Amino acid sequence: MKAPVQELQIDALRDAGNARRSDVIAVEEPLEIRLMRDGLPEADENGGTGRSISVTMRTPGHDAELAIGFLHGEGLLREPRDIISTGHCGPTGNILRITARADLPLDLARLARNFYSTSSCGVCGKASIEAVTASAGERRITSELIVREPVLRGLPDTLRAAQAGFAETGGMHAVGLFTAEGELLASREDVGRHNAMDKLVGASLLAGELPWRDRIVLLSGRASFELLQKAMMAGAPLVAAIGAPSTLAVELAESAGITLVAFLRPGGCNVYCNPWRVAGASRES
Amino acid sequence: MKAPVQELQIDALRDAGNARRSDVIAVEEPLEIRLMRDGLPEADENGGTGRSISVTMRTPGHDAELAIGFLHGEGLLREPRDIISTGHCGPTGNILRITARADLPLDLARLARNFYSTSSCGVCGKASIEAVTASAGERRITSELIVREPVLRGLPDTLRAAQAGFAETGGMHAVGLFTAEGELLASREDVGRHNAMDKLVGASLLAGELPWRDRIVLLSGRASFELLQKAMMAGAPLVAAIGAPSTLAVELAESAGITLVAFLRPGGCNVYCNPWRVAGASRES
Repeated sequence: MKAPVQELQIDALRDAGNARRSDVIAVEEPLEIRLMRDGLPEADENGGTGRSISVTMRTPGHDAELAIGFLHGEGLLREPRDIISTGHCGPTGNILRITARADLPLDLARLARNFYSTSSCGVCGKASIEAVTASAGERRITSELIVREPVLRGLPDTLRAAQAGFAETGGMHAVGLFTAEGELLASREDVGRHNAMDKLVGASLLAGELPWRDRIVLLSGRASFELLQKAMMAGAPLVAAIGAPSTLAVELAESAGITLVAFLRPGGCNVYCNPWRVAGASRES
Repeated sequence: MKAPVQELQIDALRDAGNARRSDVIAVEEPLEIRLMRDGLPEADENGGTGRSISVTMRTPGHDAELAIGFLHGEGLLREPRDIISTGHCGPTGNILRITARADLPLDLARLARNFYSTSSCGVCGKASIEAVTASAGERRITSELIVREPVLRGLPDTLRAAQAGFAETGGMHAVGLFTAEGELLASREDVGRHNAMDKLVGASLLAGELPWRDRIVLLSGRASFELLQKAMMAGAPLVAAIGAPSTLAVELAESAGITLVAFLRPGGCNVYCNPWRVAGASRES
């Protein structure tokens, strides 16, 4: 198994003097996600099996969860029985194949259209945003979760304590899944924040714990449209971010019924929409 | 012209009490980049003209620079004369068309292959990495730029002072271009760090200031493979990041002859490869 961090020799320039020393840095490598149906190998253009769905630059580790979470976000996989097997193929450890059940409906043409308009951020154009928010009736999060604000404030420290990769490298994002009482259930790290989210979603899917009806999701960085989209697909009622939100993240959260908290710091936080899930926040909006 | 920031009403929860107040947040909207050749309109599948190349989630502003910088990073545009005109089309302000000179060689099949394997981070798989580093002889940065370390340490404050969007929103990345003496020549901001880099490259291309032979490039965040790849295409001899680097960013910088500095802070910095361009750093490596 590939390591998520690697040691390199660097020049550390400091006031106290310069030193040649070792430094631990976050590994970034491509992962190709391939999908095939059980019993129905599809030859790809390289003679391998499975259809190449996406390539993402990720930190190795939890690769199957990443691939499963990614495909869940695209609406292709929904529950544990959809997945027959997963495994690396090829010599590099950078290709992950998911074998889906033989009768799983896979609209690969739709997927191809999605990817055609997929941006360098992994998100779609306005048409897709409208498609997403238009189907928000179906996706509308109805959880009656209520979280006390002091619980929210405690989450960043709890997540930070679980971020082994960040502690070593200072260069990884994390996403954490918490109960309403602030207990950390799981967290995942990656150089890409979207990958950390996919890994967490994939882990929950495999454990039969989707949707996240009464859970809190915490992002170590900023809240983008893409992350809210993935959280919505996983049914998250409350997404909190240590960093700033974007306008489109707020719009999506608002229309999907997700409570969006950002700038979550020891001194407080901001609630951008659906504030009723935070006990003590304004009931307007 | 679309605004890069937007005001929203939020609930600010603080120790001193909660308040409903306005907050300024970074705008995130899709931008579709379309490319056509002068005098040769190509109808796309929606009946419009120009070929849809990519959709990125960006902060509005400097859209033409973004598109030009992106296409430069893909090796399609190289100099000002390659571009006949640029302009928004459609009612949304989210489609930007570049008209390239009629005789510009455009290997759109190659581009399609690239995008087929383009990840959610805008970078390619291992095959492409090998292609990139294999052509590093051609792309090898030979600039004899030397920078004094105290100059490096002063860059983050200078960039921060120019980050109007970050000051307002706390939610934008920036990329700055500096002389060897630490004078800021230009900077660009965006919710996506790759977009900020593309905007800066596009601005330099339009001004006839590529390649960046004796310039310093400063990243407000982390140094990923994708950012180093774009910097390499722009000929940057020294890339400095306030955040952490990834392994693949170091590998690419090393093989392309780029000096990579990261964790650039008031107390010092780390030099990850090609340290000879930093006066006072180790000459080993």
